Amino acid sequence: MDGDGASSTGATPSEEMNGTGNLMDFLDEPFPDVGTYEDFHTIDWLREKSRDTDRHRKITTKSKESYWELIKSLLDAWSGWVVMLLIGMLTGTLAGVIDLAVDWMTDLKEGVCLSAFYYSHEQCCWTSNETTFDDRDKCPQWQKWAELMTGHSEGAGAYVLNYFLYVLWALLFSFLAVSLVRVFAPYACGSGIPEIKTILSGFIIRGYLGKWTLLIKTVTLVLAVSSGLSLGKEGPLVHVACCCGNLFCSLFSKYSKNEGKRREVLSAAAAAGVSVAFGAPIGGVLFSLEEVSYYFPLKTLWRSFFAALVAAFTLRAINPFGNSRLVLFYVEYHTPWYMAELVPFILLGVFGGLWGTLFIRGNIAWCRRRKTTLLGKYPVLEVIVITGITAVLAFPNPYTRRSTSELISELFNDCGALESSQLCDYVNNPNMSRPVDDIPDRPAGPGVYTALWQLALALIFKIVITIFTFGMKIPSGLFIPSMAVGAIAGRIVGIAVEQMAYHHHDWIIFKNWCRPGADCVTPGLYAMVGAAACLGGVTRMTVSLVVIMFELTGGLEYIVPLMAAAVTSKWVADAFGKEGIYESHIQLNGYPYLDVRDEFTHRTLATDVMRPRRSEPPLAVLTQDSTTVEDVETLIKDTDYNGFPVVVSRESERLIGFVQRRDLTVAIKTARQKQDGVVSSSVVYFTEDTPQVAEACDPQPLKLRRILNLSPFTVTDHTPMETVVDIFRKLGLRQCLVTRSGRLLGIITKKDVLRHMAQMMNQDPESIMFN
Amino acid sequence: MDGDGASSTGATPSEEMNGTGNLMDFLDEPFPDVGTYEDFHTIDWLREKSRDTDRHRKITTKSKESYWELIKSLLDAWSGWVVMLLIGMLTGTLAGVIDLAVDWMTDLKEGVCLSAFYYSHEQCCWTSNETTFDDRDKCPQWQKWAELMTGHSEGAGAYVLNYFLYVLWALLFSFLAVSLVRVFAPYACGSGIPEIKTILSGFIIRGYLGKWTLLIKTVTLVLAVSSGLSLGKEGPLVHVACCCGNLFCSLFSKYSKNEGKRREVLSAAAAAGVSVAFGAPIGGVLFSLEEVSYYFPLKTLWRSFFAALVAAFTLRAINPFGNSRLVLFYVEYHTPWYMAELVPFILLGVFGGLWGTLFIRGNIAWCRRRKTTLLGKYPVLEVIVITGITAVLAFPNPYTRRSTSELISELFNDCGALESSQLCDYVNNPNMSRPVDDIPDRPAGPGVYTALWQLALALIFKIVITIFTFGMKIPSGLFIPSMAVGAIAGRIVGIAVEQMAYHHHDWIIFKNWCRPGADCVTPGLYAMVGAAACLGGVTRMTVSLVVIMFELTGGLEYIVPLMAAAVTSKWVADAFGKEGIYESHIQLNGYPYLDVRDEFTHRTLATDVMRPRRSEPPLAVLTQDSTTVEDVETLIKDTDYNGFPVVVSRESERLIGFVQRRDLTVAIKTARQKQDGVVSSSVVYFTEDTPQVAEACDPQPLKLRRILNLSPFTVTDHTPMETVVDIFRKLGLRQCLVTRSGRLLGIITKKDVLRHMAQMMNQDPESIMFN
Repeated sequence: MDGDGASSTGATPSEEMNGTGNLMDFLDEPFPDVGTYEDFHTIDWLREKSRDTDRHRKITTKSKESYWELIKSLLDAWSGWVVMLLIGMLTGTLAGVIDLAVDWMTDLKEGVCLSAFYYSHEQCCWTSNETTFDDRDKCPQWQKWAELMTGHSEGAGAYVLNYFLYVLWALLFSFLAVSLVRVFAPYACGSGIPEIKTILSGFIIRGYLGKWTLLIKTVTLVLAVSSGLSLGKEGPLVHVACCCGNLFCSLFSKYSKNEGKRREVLSAAAAAGVSVAFGAPIGGVLFSLEEVSYYFPLKTLWRSFFAALVAAFTLRAINPFGNSRLVLFYVEYHTPWYMAELVPFILLGVFGGLWGTLFIRGNIAWCRRRKTTLLGKYPVLEVIVITGITAVLAFPNPYTRRSTSELISELFNDCGALESSQLCDYVNNPNMSRPVDDIPDRPAGPGVYTALWQLALALIFKIVITIFTFGMKIPSGLFIPSMAVGAIAGRIVGIAVEQMAYHHHDWIIFKNWCRPGADCVTPGLYAMVGAAACLGGVTRMTVSLVVIMFELTGGLEYIVPLMAAAVTSKWVADAFGKEGIYESHIQLNGYPYLDVRDEFTHRTLATDVMRPRRSEPPLAVLTQDSTTVEDVETLIKDTDYNGFPVVVSRESERLIGFVQRRDLTVAIKTARQKQDGVVSSSVVYFTEDTPQVAEACDPQPLKLRRILNLSPFTVTDHTPMETVVDIFRKLGLRQCLVTRSGRLLGIITKKDVLRHMAQMMNQDPESIMFN
Repeated sequence: MDGDGASSTGATPSEEMNGTGNLMDFLDEPFPDVGTYEDFHTIDWLREKSRDTDRHRKITTKSKESYWELIKSLLDAWSGWVVMLLIGMLTGTLAGVIDLAVDWMTDLKEGVCLSAFYYSHEQCCWTSNETTFDDRDKCPQWQKWAELMTGHSEGAGAYVLNYFLYVLWALLFSFLAVSLVRVFAPYACGSGIPEIKTILSGFIIRGYLGKWTLLIKTVTLVLAVSSGLSLGKEGPLVHVACCCGNLFCSLFSKYSKNEGKRREVLSAAAAAGVSVAFGAPIGGVLFSLEEVSYYFPLKTLWRSFFAALVAAFTLRAINPFGNSRLVLFYVEYHTPWYMAELVPFILLGVFGGLWGTLFIRGNIAWCRRRKTTLLGKYPVLEVIVITGITAVLAFPNPYTRRSTSELISELFNDCGALESSQLCDYVNNPNMSRPVDDIPDRPAGPGVYTALWQLALALIFKIVITIFTFGMKIPSGLFIPSMAVGAIAGRIVGIAVEQMAYHHHDWIIFKNWCRPGADCVTPGLYAMVGAAACLGGVTRMTVSLVVIMFELTGGLEYIVPLMAAAVTSKWVADAFGKEGIYESHIQLNGYPYLDVRDEFTHRTLATDVMRPRRSEPPLAVLTQDSTTVEDVETLIKDTDYNGFPVVVSRESERLIGFVQRRDLTVAIKTARQKQDGVVSSSVVYFTEDTPQVAEACDPQPLKLRRILNLSPFTVTDHTPMETVVDIFRKLGLRQCLVTRSGRLLGIITKKDVLRHMAQMMNQDPESIMFN
């Protein structure tokens, strides 16, 4: 008993190798399966890190041998930057292509460019000779469908024909999108962010970031957005960027063979995705840090930043918006905001929080229904129906007919003096001779009032339809719809405040800051604040949200309103439930995701969570020198555990290591094939020394010490679960063994932890409200 | 033996309390010392976190009892935000006051304002009636000392008198500064960032963030900067902000009584400090995240951002620069940069890296000399001498005479058409009628050439003097001097490139992008790039550096040059040694700081690092039921370990827990005083059940289970040190016990880890070069 106690204390590190070192040696032999993971399993971060260090150590040692090895080691050191460069360039290019294609196809629903069918409306009229500002939209080369087919551009007939074709195109696009997704890449649906969060936290979903997913998601994203559904391209772009990241990982064994290193690259790719989605590189990096990533060392921060910048500049080189601007919604305001305006800003924050709650609850309820009822059986029909409803309802209202990004852009922008938009139909003072920049508040004209009720209708429509759209079997992001809801609400509030300030500037609330004839209120800023509030309510982003918005305006001036709204919205939404939409979807899908933000504040101990429970059969363990191959095979067949603790003996229960199920299976299979004398009755030895076999005909022992992890993680049974959760989170463990005074008592896996957390959460939801 | 094995597996969590829970109950009794730390000791992050959760749980439970308790719990939840608000406001105010005072006192060295002596030169001339641009500097209310004393403002006599008084004032200021530091707050010297990094990583340095330090550092910072020494106020401002943070922590027991929570606040305060130093809130947050902080949960990210914004806006409300600008160096460039310019930018990066290396090596060598030789004995004299040399050498050169921030500001800015500065003495084309913004490249006039050699002299002067200045016994930051070195070098390179492009625009390298008569080269941008490169070389900041610079310019346009320079500079500097100036100073001072960025890639195991070594006496342990009070007291007296493992018996070596030395001392002392029958021969019991004492006169047992930590951290002896380092870093441990098959073998403390890392680093420095 306890026989291995004294033997190797004095061994030097090179003589005595640790579990991981052994594993690496094992990998040099042709058993490629050892050390990999199965689909839908969790990776062991510590092990991956160890493996990378070993690989790195090997390269460093070799690099001293020859110049060629030195060059190879330098290439290895630089491969991270190369991958980032490639990711940035491909992501930027794809984003540019998607933008161009979406522009063209969105316009295709309304008409076609006669001079070149592949031009979007805007491009078509750029090349036209009609250069006056007002005629831009109505150049002769661009013809609506009715005009092209019947020759009439006006009248009820033409309207109905345009309406009909608009709906038809929308249905066609969405049908194509959902069919492609269903046939070629089921993983291409949704926004992808919940899954990417899960993958980055160390879960394996094979194919989720594959080449097919990349291709199909890119194509169907264009189709889905063009179909006019209430969805955006920002979330899916993150998924696309991560697919690019995964693609380039396969070029370098450093990343393709190490799931931990791969996730570093994916974190950076996510940053590049957001960077091109909004043209906000810093915001992208912070989004990756705050929202998506799990393990984010400083090295990754720096590389993410590089990838995000490359992506942003590639996109700018493609210049899909035709304005040399990096950002999706470029805005420039000319007037400061006033303290009193914080009141409507905070109200918008409250609205954003309420919208977030409503959306998350409604969407989750609907998605649950989709999972559990017949609805889930007909995804194509669902998409067709929703597209039909969206298109039919959207066409009559000019604010919903156009693409959502255009709508947001218009709502964000302040009215210039010459603006032709309906929203800018203010009554101009004929004496006005100010510069274009600085226009005083003016009374609203009839156009503005029309716009107001159209916007109100659009608001209700967007709120309802978005709840049903997000989660369908097509690529769908919710940044843009959320921002649209907020921007509409914000603009309405902004115009209301502006008109109040104009007509009642003697009211006490306006008196101090709004002289008549001054430009006090910027309705566009309200739209922006509203958009930030709504996006914050849905996603619970904070810093990254404010930074993205800051990058859109490029000035610190408006950061306080944005922050006030974002913080209010988060607080309001948090009061109704801690989880953002992504976490809710992760929970709905049951992914094993250990959120960094959930604080575990219960008083349970490791002993309450560990398996086996008192009523259960004892823990399945192997002994170090008395289990036969047959015993092991039976154990593997009878149980589905991912690994087994190895103890000195069943009586002493002293733990010596942990062996992975997969490694055990592979090792026994290989040994039976290649090693003579290994039969079912062979004894499996995990000790360092194996006793000599007396006679040659006796079964040969099977030495498996080299697949044994000699440094399994242990905690005592008295360890508070809070600490255990912290350890799992910070070290990225798969399992942890529980001991008491040196005896093995049980095991806690990541799933046990998650299950326990969910249980405790349901028991006592209030205790996590204030932290 | 192993007697506690079976007794309490079935106990529910409320019956059986964990070590930390016990500790809290113990704290309710009047032993305020249990659970606190001694000076110059490391905190236990897990324990602090546990304690906070307990506190929080208590408040939540109580909050259901009455409205008053509910309000108290809400106040507790909000106290974090209140602290942030207060920190932001105080930091912003202090920064504003410091800026104003520095402005005034710097100008005081040259002259005085007659209309009001407390006006700086600029303020003095604002109020004057001379409103033309050129006369601003020479308003009659402002008189130089010579003019005031002798009535002559020109001539050799006046020059000498001004020179003399300049040096005298400088000596006076620096003497006052160093005396105040020495007498009242020795901790107020230096930049403070190395110490703050160490404190944030979990070290206790009492008084380092105290009220006296705050007061003295603020005052002496003004004096030191005004004295014209080559130092900046940015680093010390971070220290000042952290002192504010610590001050406000003491208002709330949530923060003052928990060293972990306190560090969250301090991280945010550091962000506020940088935010006001540069007017860059986002950069400040990233600086805190990248450079200073150790434990930075997402909640802290958001709060830091809030504190940084509040501080920035408070500073703007004070408006010390008189231009409503938030940023220290506001710049606006009008021309884009060209690809070919990346070559000089990268060269500037190389220069920055070399400067970083030179500075760190030189400064560390000098500081080591200061520590080990007589030099360290005369800090006042050293400061006086250096100030004297600085002032004497600085006065003749206009670029070193003024304050360094003014110099940087001038170097950053592009020349307008009407600029009166010597640096902008270009030969104007008389036909030029372009708008002021867009000035073509012009040939340099004689003023520029004078400026060039003056700048070159200033560069050499700054490089040399900064090495000797940083680390003296006065508050001294190195952001500004580093940036100055880079800005001077950059501006020189910029002017050189500009003149080359003007005179040789037919050269192949200029041909493609620089037409004659166009504005191709912006020397100010070169200065900025150089500043970023030099700052990066010294501090090894990356993302935060680029973001701070980005916030200064406010446009993404120039982010690529900045990044190229920053990344080159980091690579070049890293090639000569991984450590930045702060890490070098931490090492020099021997603080127990476990850097997150150092990757440990050696193949050693826990068994190689743990104590006791083979030659040493066995580990000092306590047994659970056979140690007497006297034994314990002897052990405490004979050893200076921070804690002792408790085992079942010396034979079985089965670990049951860990007890802190401090807790043990307090508990025994209290028991001897208050508990009858506890004498030297009393047996100390760490078990749950204590045997009944047969007779009343026998010594009573002393039950100490409640101070026993039942969940000590253990690893096996085969655990790779890489994993151990990771665990120490991520979980913030103080010590970790080493076991083999359930037997206690030894202990690894944080200091053992650091010592081992330093050893391995020296053995094989190359292996950490490429990662």
